[in-house]
Amino acid sequence: MAIAIKELTPRSENYSQWYNDLVIKADLAENAAVRGCMVIKPYGYAIWEKIQQQLDTMFKETGHVNAYFPLFIPKSFLSKEADHVEGFAKECAVVTHYRLKNDPNGNGVIVDPDARLEEELVVRPTSETIIWNTYKNWIQSWRDLPLLCNQWANVVRWEMRTRLFLRTAEFLWQEGHTAHATKEEALEETEKMLGVYAEFAEKYMAVPVLKGVKTANERFAGALETYCIEALMQDGKALQAGTSHFLGQNFAKAFDVQFLNKDGVRDYVWATSWGVSTRLMGALIMAHSDDNGLVLPPKLAPYQVVIVPIYKTDEQWDAINKKADKLANKLKELGISVKYDNSQNKKPGWKFAEYELKGVPVRVAIGARDMENNTAEIARRDTLTKETVGFDNIEIYIKDLLNAIQENIFKKAYDYRESHTVTVDSYDEFKVKIEEGGFLLAHWDGTSETEEKIKEETKATIRCIPLGGDPTPGKCIVTGKPSERRVVFARAY
Amino acid sequence: MAIAIKELTPRSENYSQWYNDLVIKADLAENAAVRGCMVIKPYGYAIWEKIQQQLDTMFKETGHVNAYFPLFIPKSFLSKEADHVEGFAKECAVVTHYRLKNDPNGNGVIVDPDARLEEELVVRPTSETIIWNTYKNWIQSWRDLPLLCNQWANVVRWEMRTRLFLRTAEFLWQEGHTAHATKEEALEETEKMLGVYAEFAEKYMAVPVLKGVKTANERFAGALETYCIEALMQDGKALQAGTSHFLGQNFAKAFDVQFLNKDGVRDYVWATSWGVSTRLMGALIMAHSDDNGLVLPPKLAPYQVVIVPIYKTDEQWDAINKKADKLANKLKELGISVKYDNSQNKKPGWKFAEYELKGVPVRVAIGARDMENNTAEIARRDTLTKETVGFDNIEIYIKDLLNAIQENIFKKAYDYRESHTVTVDSYDEFKVKIEEGGFLLAHWDGTSETEEKIKEETKATIRCIPLGGDPTPGKCIVTGKPSERRVVFARAY
Repeated sequence: MAIAIKELTPRSENYSQWYNDLVIKADLAENAAVRGCMVIKPYGYAIWEKIQQQLDTMFKETGHVNAYFPLFIPKSFLSKEADHVEGFAKECAVVTHYRLKNDPNGNGVIVDPDARLEEELVVRPTSETIIWNTYKNWIQSWRDLPLLCNQWANVVRWEMRTRLFLRTAEFLWQEGHTAHATKEEALEETEKMLGVYAEFAEKYMAVPVLKGVKTANERFAGALETYCIEALMQDGKALQAGTSHFLGQNFAKAFDVQFLNKDGVRDYVWATSWGVSTRLMGALIMAHSDDNGLVLPPKLAPYQVVIVPIYKTDEQWDAINKKADKLANKLKELGISVKYDNSQNKKPGWKFAEYELKGVPVRVAIGARDMENNTAEIARRDTLTKETVGFDNIEIYIKDLLNAIQENIFKKAYDYRESHTVTVDSYDEFKVKIEEGGFLLAHWDGTSETEEKIKEETKATIRCIPLGGDPTPGKCIVTGKPSERRVVFARAY
Repeated sequence: MAIAIKELTPRSENYSQWYNDLVIKADLAENAAVRGCMVIKPYGYAIWEKIQQQLDTMFKETGHVNAYFPLFIPKSFLSKEADHVEGFAKECAVVTHYRLKNDPNGNGVIVDPDARLEEELVVRPTSETIIWNTYKNWIQSWRDLPLLCNQWANVVRWEMRTRLFLRTAEFLWQEGHTAHATKEEALEETEKMLGVYAEFAEKYMAVPVLKGVKTANERFAGALETYCIEALMQDGKALQAGTSHFLGQNFAKAFDVQFLNKDGVRDYVWATSWGVSTRLMGALIMAHSDDNGLVLPPKLAPYQVVIVPIYKTDEQWDAINKKADKLANKLKELGISVKYDNSQNKKPGWKFAEYELKGVPVRVAIGARDMENNTAEIARRDTLTKETVGFDNIEIYIKDLLNAIQENIFKKAYDYRESHTVTVDSYDEFKVKIEEGGFLLAHWDGTSETEEKIKEETKATIRCIPLGGDPTPGKCIVTGKPSERRVVFARAY
């Protein structure tokens, strides 16, 4: 019964329902009582903390520092950069009052009409405007540059159709905002941070990503160039996993941020911004998990190993406890996070199903026969295989196994992507292939018109103009006009 | 010149101005363009990160897990607990709309009147209501208890008079929200977390605190009992540094959170909540710093040691660099955070003043004579003393020195508090002594009337009814009525 209610809709039946089931049943998150917002539950948040810690380390290693800027942005600030406000105005939560009061008619509390703000405040959808208004006072000379700040924060974008982690009205993210003396340096930073994101996605999330540049249509509102990493989910849809924007001098001009360069000449400052969000949780879940539940890469699993005792007598219980505690300590000494679940109100079968659902990479079961033989049963979550292993030095075996699982999960996702990346050379072929999902490499004439026509007719968007890969020119699959190189199409989240 | 502009107003001249000068000039924080909000600058944020890391570790060691709940609270939720809404209604930022649009009259963007929310959303001033509404679905049986969640978040309370860190419209904090099967267990949790806060304040912030219970007047809105830790600042004013609330069944009743207990009987769940905020930064700054700048306890200093080279020739520069790098590495191996500042565009004197201002606990200067003698000059920030120390094993010397500084800073603050804590036995004496600042231990008749009269006439509030200390009964200094025990009065931040 306890197991039955945790069953997931199979992916083949309804991928979208499978995802929702999984997020809920693995205790990752749930819809909040506030429309479009989510509650990130402890187990989901523990994974997010792992993501944060690793990214934060990587940001600091590349010279960035954390800071914190206000939640609220005066409406007039948001309006200063024309493209920016155009892009975000339609989804802004707006604070108009600063006080509630008792309803004189006795209907509980109401918004106090006398406490209307002179200027409305927008809950930050992103912080370029408030940060560049602040940077104005921090930057006078080239000596103040580069300025390399990051912030971990919540942001709000009033989305109409929301899905847990993938698209929510409030989400958690980090946003880096850097200021530079030259265009070259800002471009270099933009690409460097894209590289950090790609490295994180591949080495830690075990999710292979394409690095590329967005078309004008898909650019961040206010950017001159948006770089992105794109991942492929198991249903053949693409997911944008991170973006890094070259903002040129747009925000410096909007907020009049000038500096004296080394030659004593005043110039506008060059900017970048870059961010990843709790959306990464969605990518992590969808890239690896199966019909039994989550599959977590060991590097981001809250518990890398769970130990489950199987016993009948009190004597067995005592002996197994001793042995399991010893193993847990040895694993901890190796830096491996481990949970010994010897709770007595749950049966081993229930525990097996539970930790499978929660994606714990390695399960160690110790039973009476194992005690006799000095062995343990080790189960891999990624392959769902089991084997009996001798207990001596088993901690080393497990450590190696965790590395192997991390690699295998990546390889599986990589092979999936490679086998779902196809080159197409006609629009007819494109229309057939796009139904099968995956990345389509096709020639495009570089115009927004063609891009939009394709989107309208096939629901496919240009995920990116890839950095690297085959640079051969060709002819647009729709118009036959010249194409500089193939670009990557897919249907996307 | 560069040094001169960093000078602080002396504490003796204007303590309040000294504090503001220090926060600004040490690059800790500044006022944001949004009224009442602050920008936490990288150096200030680095200290906050240290505070967070340590507290987070202590919360996890005591069995708590992190989660994340929405920023927005429906107005109707806030209203469900009568005392709670009464306490927070007057300072709520209210979101009424979810979209901006272009002004048809061409005056930029305006709030779209068609995008009015059906129910207004309050930006969380604290999260009891949204969390207990969520807990309702998480708790069915005693097996689901205790539930021990914490969240790191931003909150907004629309304060009219704000001061950096001490009182800002938006601030960062953590809020623990726990659910228990029994009153005893909830009370135990309330006191346990007060203990964690006190331990953190004393061992890490080096700030001695009194533990106590608030009077009914000063209780958290919706709590049955508010426990607190109270610290004394150098101007003789008290600062509430953390609170832990026993909420009884108030929120369980307001949100109908019931559970089946072990006897199969339905009962309301017992609750606690507890929090500390960026206000701790204010306490940290005010408790220890001096007219030269910040004094940071080593355990929370972003850099515990700074090394400054003093050289004239390129040869000296090369040799000192080598020696300093080696020392820096040795210190890092000991887990000590160190900055080697060999920037060439700033003079040693400027650096000395800068790191003094920023409160780096230990400064190591290495000059040409030190190279000859195999020594270094070590300066302590807390005592402003210097000494020349032999270079062999200097890293061990520094490690011990950091411990000594941590202890000395605490002792200094402790001695200050002890010498500014007085027992008073008449209201006349009280009125004289309160002008001198510090904690006044006096008898009180237990009524709100007397408490308010004293506050009105002397600006002193009851900081707490202390846990521990002298329990002897006596007579109220104002009314002469019986008093159970002395309570702690002070003027407060």
